[in-house]
Amino acid sequence: MIVEQGILRIVPGEEAAFELAMESAKTIIAAMPGFRRLQVSRGIEASETYLLLVEWDTLEDHTQGFRGSVDYERWRSALHHFYDPFPVIEHFAPVIEIDRTIDKV
Amino acid sequence: MIVEQGILRIVPGEEAAFELAMESAKTIIAAMPGFRRLQVSRGIEASETYLLLVEWDTLEDHTQGFRGSVDYERWRSALHHFYDPFPVIEHFAPVIEIDRTIDKV
Repeated sequence: MIVEQGILRIVPGEEAAFELAMESAKTIIAAMPGFRRLQVSRGIEASETYLLLVEWDTLEDHTQGFRGSVDYERWRSALHHFYDPFPVIEHFAPVIEIDRTIDKV
Repeated sequence: MIVEQGILRIVPGEEAAFELAMESAKTIIAAMPGFRRLQVSRGIEASETYLLLVEWDTLEDHTQGFRGSVDYERWRSALHHFYDPFPVIEHFAPVIEIDRTIDKV
């Protein structure tokens, strides 16, 4: 599993519209092969920022599968105009985890 | 639920030692009231960086409970010397989520 991560900075005043657009567009990404989990969270210290986290089976499910899909254009059209600047998206591979919502520790 | 997030940049060459220290120290944070989940992931594009994600019941469980606890000093002693520079830690409140590992979409 890999985690796609980015801090999304939204055009001022467009936060509510962005959340509506993401709520609608989430089904696009969730239908992709290798998709596991999407979480979009609003900044507490900086409310114009959102933390984007997407879990994929493999790096290529995101970088080749999703970004190379015909549906990616719909995602881009729905969301990319909210970002200023365009976010840096990076990928991470989990090495340590404790999940108290599943495991007992 | 809130998400604590930070990009941890590790002193060059200390990545393996950091992972061992975090593996050992994770039980400190996992024992805190309000702790839900810890995930530490290594950068794919930048292997000297790690994504720290911690889910807490409330913001105060992290900022007051954990940081104000006597055990926080053990966490700090075990880990903080690996960071260069010291990371910016921010908090986010989930607004949109799809979890295919739980739900059907």
